[in-house]
Amino acid sequence: MENYQIDNLDKSILQALMNDARIPYAELAKRFSVSAGTIHVRVEKMKQAGIITGTKVCINAKKLGYDVCCFIGINLKHARDYQETIAQLESFEEVVEAYYTTGNYSIFIKVLSQSMDHLHDVLVNKIQSIEAIQSTETLISLQAPIMREIQP
Amino acid sequence: MENYQIDNLDKSILQALMNDARIPYAELAKRFSVSAGTIHVRVEKMKQAGIITGTKVCINAKKLGYDVCCFIGINLKHARDYQETIAQLESFEEVVEAYYTTGNYSIFIKVLSQSMDHLHDVLVNKIQSIEAIQSTETLISLQAPIMREIQP
Amino acid sequence: MENYQIDNLDKSILQALMNDARIPYAELAKRFSVSAGTIHVRVEKMKQAGIITGTKVCINAKKLGYDVCCFIGINLKHARDYQETIAQLESFEEVVEAYYTTGNYSIFIKVLSQSMDHLHDVLVNKIQSIEAIQSTETLISLQAPIMREIQP
Amino acid sequence: MENYQIDNLDKSILQALMNDARIPYAELAKRFSVSAGTIHVRVEKMKQAGIITGTKVCINAKKLGYDVCCFIGINLKHARDYQETIAQLESFEEVVEAYYTTGNYSIFIKVLSQSMDHLHDVLVNKIQSIEAIQSTETLISLQAPIMREIQP
Amino acid sequence: MENYQIDNLDKSILQALMNDARIPYAELAKRFSVSAGTIHVRVEKMKQAGIITGTKVCINAKKLGYDVCCFIGINLKHARDYQETIAQLESFEEVVEAYYTTGNYSIFIKVLSQSMDHLHDVLVNKIQSIEAIQSTETLISLQAPIMREIQP
Amino acid sequence: MENYQIDNLDKSILQALMNDARIPYAELAKRFSVSAGTIHVRVEKMKQAGIITGTKVCINAKKLGYDVCCFIGINLKHARDYQETIAQLESFEEVVEAYYTTGNYSIFIKVLSQSMDHLHDVLVNKIQSIEAIQSTETLISLQAPIMREIQP
Amino acid sequence: MENYQIDNLDKSILQALMNDARIPYAELAKRFSVSAGTIHVRVEKMKQAGIITGTKVCINAKKLGYDVCCFIGINLKHARDYQETIAQLESFEEVVEAYYTTGNYSIFIKVLSQSMDHLHDVLVNKIQSIEAIQSTETLISLQAPIMREIQP
Amino acid sequence: MENYQIDNLDKSILQALMNDARIPYAELAKRFSVSAGTIHVRVEKMKQAGIITGTKVCINAKKLGYDVCCFIGINLKHARDYQETIAQLESFEEVVEAYYTTGNYSIFIKVLSQSMDHLHDVLVNKIQSIEAIQSTETLISLQAPIMREIQP
Repeated sequence: MENYQIDNLDKSILQALMNDARIPYAELAKRFSVSAGTIHVRVEKMKQAGIITGTKVCINAKKLGYDVCCFIGINLKHARDYQETIAQLESFEEVVEAYYTTGNYSIFIKVLSQSMDHLHDVLVNKIQSIEAIQSTETLISLQAPIMREIQP
Repeated sequence: MENYQIDNLDKSILQALMNDARIPYAELAKRFSVSAGTIHVRVEKMKQAGIITGTKVCINAKKLGYDVCCFIGINLKHARDYQETIAQLESFEEVVEAYYTTGNYSIFIKVLSQSMDHLHDVLVNKIQSIEAIQSTETLISLQAPIMREIQP
Repeated sequence: MENYQIDNLDKSILQALMNDARIPYAELAKRFSVSAGTIHVRVEKMKQAGIITGTKVCINAKKLGYDVCCFIGINLKHARDYQETIAQLESFEEVVEAYYTTGNYSIFIKVLSQSMDHLHDVLVNKIQSIEAIQSTETLISLQAPIMREIQP
Repeated sequence: MENYQIDNLDKSILQALMNDARIPYAELAKRFSVSAGTIHVRVEKMKQAGIITGTKVCINAKKLGYDVCCFIGINLKHARDYQETIAQLESFEEVVEAYYTTGNYSIFIKVLSQSMDHLHDVLVNKIQSIEAIQSTETLISLQAPIMREIQP
Repeated sequence: MENYQIDNLDKSILQALMNDARIPYAELAKRFSVSAGTIHVRVEKMKQAGIITGTKVCINAKKLGYDVCCFIGINLKHARDYQETIAQLESFEEVVEAYYTTGNYSIFIKVLSQSMDHLHDVLVNKIQSIEAIQSTETLISLQAPIMREIQP
Repeated sequence: MENYQIDNLDKSILQALMNDARIPYAELAKRFSVSAGTIHVRVEKMKQAGIITGTKVCINAKKLGYDVCCFIGINLKHARDYQETIAQLESFEEVVEAYYTTGNYSIFIKVLSQSMDHLHDVLVNKIQSIEAIQSTETLISLQAPIMREIQP
Repeated sequence: MENYQIDNLDKSILQALMNDARIPYAELAKRFSVSAGTIHVRVEKMKQAGIITGTKVCINAKKLGYDVCCFIGINLKHARDYQETIAQLESFEEVVEAYYTTGNYSIFIKVLSQSMDHLHDVLVNKIQSIEAIQSTETLISLQAPIMREIQP
Repeated sequence: MENYQIDNLDKSILQALMNDARIPYAELAKRFSVSAGTIHVRVEKMKQAGIITGTKVCINAKKLGYDVCCFIGINLKHARDYQETIAQLESFEEVVEAYYTTGNYSIFIKVLSQSMDHLHDVLVNKIQSIEAIQSTETLISLQAPIMREIQP
């Protein structure tokens, strides 16, 4: 099932479920003029192919108090400390994404924090306390006008 | 309901639904030793407070063929062209996130593409064809060891 | 009075008045074992020499709601637009300091704003709407551990 | 008194006192058509709310011989040396402001010196003698066309 | 023949021919203990698969007077001028390689010239005369300790 | 033979052999209206002068699976570790070129890899495991529109 | 006389004259145990070869009031405006050296000025008034511990 | 004699001697319509004031074989190693100028070398062998269209 190629019906089902994971298969069947069984089979195939990996509720981080979103470019003292540093970063709940990128940072991370004071605390007492980190450069996001997922 | 403060039960419910949006309320009720009605009330309150904004299936972009993830820093010819440029970027499906950040880029975006050739095409024929853009700097992600959501 | 050289008594008086502008001259006279007339003469001389330029109450900008302090490096499209740009920046009350500096910015300013959203508004709708500005780079201050005046 | 919200009368009083801390309350009362007692009450409230923190004479640093104003971006060998370095910088009277900022400096300071030779001495014999500092970058201010306080 | 997978014999033949394109097939046959016909068949297959694209004599550019090798990063005024600029660069014989790269240059080229004066001439009178180019940054190679081809 | 100056006939012969190293001397003799012996003499002279250093088959690296071409700027912890680092880089077959350049990198290399995952592996497990390397900056080539040799 | 190769006697004469251009030939003759005529012949030969181009008194620019020495990196709007910009810079007496360099400046100049205010005036009213200049970056020299000529 | 203010006659004498240090005083006297004794007195006063520091022959470094002129920005591992590094740089004859500058280099030097190979040797075997140096950035001068002294 590894190389399952999705067709237009799969795409339509995926798009519908990416908007609302709880929509009944019967409704999808009616919308796409197929049987509910077909919907079921297709969803199962996409699960087995690893295309659909689960479902989740979507949350608004700002409503939970996470007001400040930023990206932090990290430079290590030695390039070889990459693996250990990732492990330490993973232990900080505010670090939600980490990337190994080309370009002039050793590691590039996304951090959510509740306020500027919280961000200062995360930087000084968590991230910059990691022995292997030489310096950090923080880009604070003042607005995120586009935030969506790739369309199948 | 604007300033609804979540308590520990809300947090537990949210965490469960962030892992699996289709889990029956009855199961959550049993797990947290409350009635299913309580689960229902709490979820409704978090929806009304704007904390829960929907549900979705989670997809694996790589399985859909999107192999190359990158960040692109964009410099505009004139800082005042920000709004129009965002509108044009939004029309390209490969642009999944856009940020207005402090630091030395006018706009910072995340782009998914199917291959290096596809990325080249998106850069030359889509992004760099925007009149207002002076230059771009691309950071390709070679690995994303942390990718998760903030914990409530 | 242009080149008035202050002596130790002047220094002591200045330091006292930099801490509290309303301290009675009689108290200063007693503290420094001179006559109140001497204090008066010295203060007048320092006023005439342009060393003392006035008095003011000190305010705490945070208590007035100005939570976010930042420095913004501005690059102009043409170096010769410096004078006009300064005039426009002066019309924005959030811009409290501006410098012409060596280094790679055309102009370097200090901006106070009430929140991240206010800063975003100041950047997009005020500063970046200036025709002559090509780009800006914002350094947000997360903490200001030293903030004092030079000691005479 | 923590969250005291200032009204228009408070603003007018503040602005008057920010221009001249020694202006008699009677004159303010006359100017704003209220009683001197009202002025007194308002000033006291703003003091208790922490909005007014004191009074001071304003001095002209250039007249005291401080001709050269500069900003210095400091990069530390290890991000974790931040606190100790601030303590050492505070012991140098020429360092009048220090900031922890986002962007590519570990610490950003403002320094006043009496001449280029004095600045050289401060850099080589004071700032760069701090063990934890790897490098510094100095922006000399050649002019400061805007220098004011935020308006309440 | 598009997806021809080379085996160890193919690799050995390729490596031999990458060292000396004129080596007789009979000698290769003897060296690898196969018939000359086998060598011929394998070479033809690799030609048809597009792996072998031709033969050439190797020259030493320094012996022909090309003493100065450099890389030049080019920034365009508008990202969209990429195609035309490449066409113009191609008309200059000193430009031997050009790349569209991620990172902060619009175009990255390799240039050979006969002397520093020749390089100055190529920069001022050829490359920088291109209307679309805003600026260039030149990295002169003082030594090239590794210069080889990928091993099959 | 060190300073052999090539003439137009030599240039024509070189250009022909740079296109096809196996072209018979008889054909070149006919094309340039000289005897085959003359061609032979000239080629021998250019070999002895070190202008012609050998022959090779030309290969298409992409057809051998090397899809990703990149340049990597390397910064060393200490400038004096240059020689040892070159020796270590030479042991990695993916490193096909290395330069000592003016500009802000200690070493500048060209690397071929089979995929983004392979490049990640080369960076983390080979290049960045070298003790002397402080950081690397990778420029991935998305297209190479010019790729040729200098014309004699 | 173009390719005159200097010998040890020439070197000794040159070094002596680089320290003191008015030293009598008789004294040099005595010092180097040759005839005054020999000194005369050698000096003439070095003049004809273009090695000695004249004599001058050495001045101390600081004693003439030129207190501030700086280097200014200039970026042009269009690389092709190089020649005209040099001509304009030459008309400013404060610009004492100009270089066309590799690296990220279009032009690199050395400027002497009498004070920080004078430098500000030169930057704003002379250099930055040149239409073709986009931006400048100023490095002020705080000390020049080595200042000598190459030894023959 | 410290603060000797030069007048127009002094300026004329200086300019004449900066063009030709061996010009007879009698000729200067005639040119400026004063007595030779006056010329003598003025020159002596300018010597005593430290304005005239000596005389020298002017040489053309290129004619002596110094073909390559470059500026090198040096970054130290620790800012405090400045003094020792200057002492070591002074022992290399190719280093003709060194500056302590504001901006992002620890030390900024000017180097003359006889060829690209000589420059490579100076960089690798002299400058970069200094323990305290972390990295260097070299700007090679391809042309020096302005090279003069400040006019008195």
